Order: sequence, then structure tokens, then C-alpha cells
Amino acid sequence: MIPIISIVGKSDSGKTTLIEKLVPELTRRGYRVATVKHDIHGFEVDREGKDSWRHKQAGAHTVVISSPNKVALIRDVEKDLTLDEIREKLIQDVDLILSEGYKKDVQPKIEIFRKEKHRELLCTQEDQLVAITSNQKFDIGVPCFDLEDMKGLADFIEKNFLTPTSPPEIFLKVDGKNISLSPFVKDFLAKTIQGMLSSLKGCEPSHRIDIRIENRKRQE
Amino acid sequence: MIPIISIVGKSDSGKTTLIEKLVPELTRRGYRVATVKHDIHGFEVDREGKDSWRHKQAGAHTVVISSPNKVALIRDVEKDLTLDEIREKLIQDVDLILSEGYKKDVQPKIEIFRKEKHRELLCTQEDQLVAITSNQKFDIGVPCFDLEDMKGLADFIEKNFLTPTSPPEIFLKVDGKNISLSPFVKDFLAKTIQGMLSSLKGCEPSHRIDIRIENRKRQE
Repeated sequence: MIPIISIVGKSDSGKTTLIEKLVPELTRRGYRVATVKHDIHGFEVDREGKDSWRHKQAGAHTVVISSPNKVALIRDVEKDLTLDEIREKLIQDVDLILSEGYKKDVQPKIEIFRKEKHRELLCTQEDQLVAITSNQKFDIGVPCFDLEDMKGLADFIEKNFLTPTSPPEIFLKVDGKNISLSPFVKDFLAKTIQGMLSSLKGCEPSHRIDIRIENRKRQE
Repeated sequence: MIPIISIVGKSDSGKTTLIEKLVPELTRRGYRVATVKHDIHGFEVDREGKDSWRHKQAGAHTVVISSPNKVALIRDVEKDLTLDEIREKLIQDVDLILSEGYKKDVQPKIEIFRKEKHRELLCTQEDQLVAITSNQKFDIGVPCFDLEDMKGLADFIEKNFLTPTSPPEIFLKVDGKNISLSPFVKDFLAKTIQGMLSSLKGCEPSHRIDIRIENRKRQE
């Protein structure tokens, strides 16, 4: 499952600027990063009159614009998605998700704090605070990095969230016949299924998962 | 697996206009539709200076902007995605995917043809042509609908691509213990797993699928 870290802080603390500095440091180390930004006011990401804009205006639930080097998607949702839901529904092919904000979400958080702007931290350890980046030292049981120390912060993230684990083994039978899978497909299937199950009660980190799917005849 | 239909036709045949008329007809019937548009020239979907734009400029592989009623995503790709890949990586929660163009893709196609604009059809049945919408009658073994007949075209799509089937049954064990699942989760898990497997050799439509995932200890 792709790890999520939220960059939180009071307004004007420099969250976007921190992400602008942290992403290149992680990218330079070979990690692919997704970012998530909450926009409570709604947003416009497409231009009036474009074909894709016309599709959306006509009532399409989801519109995808695909080009050889990037893809864009706009879709309806019925409520604000949690970071977990965003990860499950939308994000693939990255090593880490950094959100800007999402203080109320359950994911681990790094708070940015500037002594000249604010008096108190936004988060406590009950908010899953895992680190602070600040121009003031805090001694509250989590690492505190200097505002400019991107190397230290990236080392911390790498060590705690990006350390590789041995991939799970997966066995697949179709109609009783064993199907051999490439390492890529094994990894993809196992991680996707485990990701889907991870939010279900009774499916906490486990040693073995067995799934059987039986296709029944169409009901006429 | 979500069915895909490509709306194809020579340039200036009215593909976008057809999608603008077809989507409301399908939506009125209770279906959720995703559309896919190919943009070979690239595109801009975000505004310079916005926080999400700054994330992307900093090198984020994927940027998500989330609001209470819609979500947008921009991500890098290494090559043009096929419709199959777009479905797998990006699209959820819809009943049908309509692409504009994608004549070379392997998905079923509906061609739009105007006699005053062109002389010959773009597709043959080898291109997976399943229907024509035109102001000229064609008798080539696939249904031909009048350009204005959205009801007829939607009936055709509904009957051939959207007829409900009985949902598959799914059984899940974690460390040997049966886990009970809600109908929504059953359906979601079974369809997602079947969708992932559908492109693998030896996993063609099947009666029964068994998967076992074994988590091993971390390699130190």
C-alpha cells in the first residue's frame, strides 16, 4: 500500500513551499511522489469550449484527457474523499503520497511551524504527528528538523515510510489450474488486493489471505 | 469490467456533438458514463501559480485536487495509454466508458458518418465496428441509426453492453478465518480482481478463481 504523509501547518506557514522543496529531494533519490491538495472552493481545471469540457457539461461522471506524456481526469464525487479513498480510487505507480493539509485525516503528519508567524503547534501526537519542521526547536517526542533541512526530512521519510519489504507471494488458480505470474504481476496483484482489504474489519495485517470467486450463470 | 465503446468517425463528422447528445440519454436512464478524449498536442488543465500547479512543477508524478463535489488528477505517463490501461488505472464507479476517437484501439466502435462530408466509412467490421449512426443507410451487417436517433442508439448500447448479470460470489479467509463481507464490498472486490486478471494469459472468462497471498517476513 502506498504510504501517505500529510504536510500540515497553520495558514501561511509555508506548506506549499515545503512540498516544492521536498518533492525534488525525494525525486532525486528515485522515488515517485503524488501530491494531494484539498480545494474546498471547488476549481476549474478545464477550458470552456474544449471537447473534454463539452463532455463534462453533457453530464459525464468522469472525463479523461489522455496524451503521450500525461493524463488528466475529472470526476464527480458525492462527498469529500478521505486520503485513503483517494489512494484507492485514483493513485497508482508512485512510492509516496504527500498531502497538503488534511489535518483531520487519520494519516501520519509532518507539521511546519514558523516562530515569527504562530505561537503554538497545530497538532499533538494524538493527530499522528510524526515530525516537525521549524525554525524553533520542539522537544515533544518527535524529530524536529530545521526548515531548510530537506536532506534530514527526506532521510526520515525514507527510513520510516519507504524502506522496502520483501514482496508477498501470491498463488493463482483458474478453474483449478495453476497460473504462472511474472514478478511484476505478482507484486501488482498482491499489493492491490491487500490494499483493498486493508480497510475492512477483520483484515488487519495478516499472514495469509485466501479468496475464491465463483461466477454464476446470468439471471434471465 | 466496465464496457468501453469508441465513438469514431472522420474529422468534422460530429463525434463530440454525438457524445454530447448520447451522454444525457444514458444518464437519464440511470447509467453513469465516463468519456475519454485523446489529445495528441498535450493540454493544460491547471492554472499557473496555483498550489497544485506548483506541486506538479516541483516534479510530482501525480497531482490530485480534491473538493466536496469533484476530484481532478494529473499524472505523468511514459506512453499513450490504451483504453484498457485507462480503465484499469483511472476509472471507477461508472457503468460505461465512451471514448472519442481511438480508432486504432481494440474496443468496439460506433462510427458517425455524414454523407455531405465524406464518401466512405472509416471503419470495417475488422475494426470491431458494432453500429453506425448516419444520415445515409448502410447495409453492411451492423445496425445503422439515424443521426438524431439517440433513443435507438442508447437502446442498442443498453441491450448489448449494459445488461446486468448476476454478481459473482466471493469468499475471503484471513489466516484461515472466514470474513463476512457486505454485498457492496463483495461486488467491488470480485469485479476489481476479475478486472485485473482479465488481461493475463490463461485467465479468460472462468468459473472459479482461487488466490492465496502469503506475507513473508521482512528481509533485513
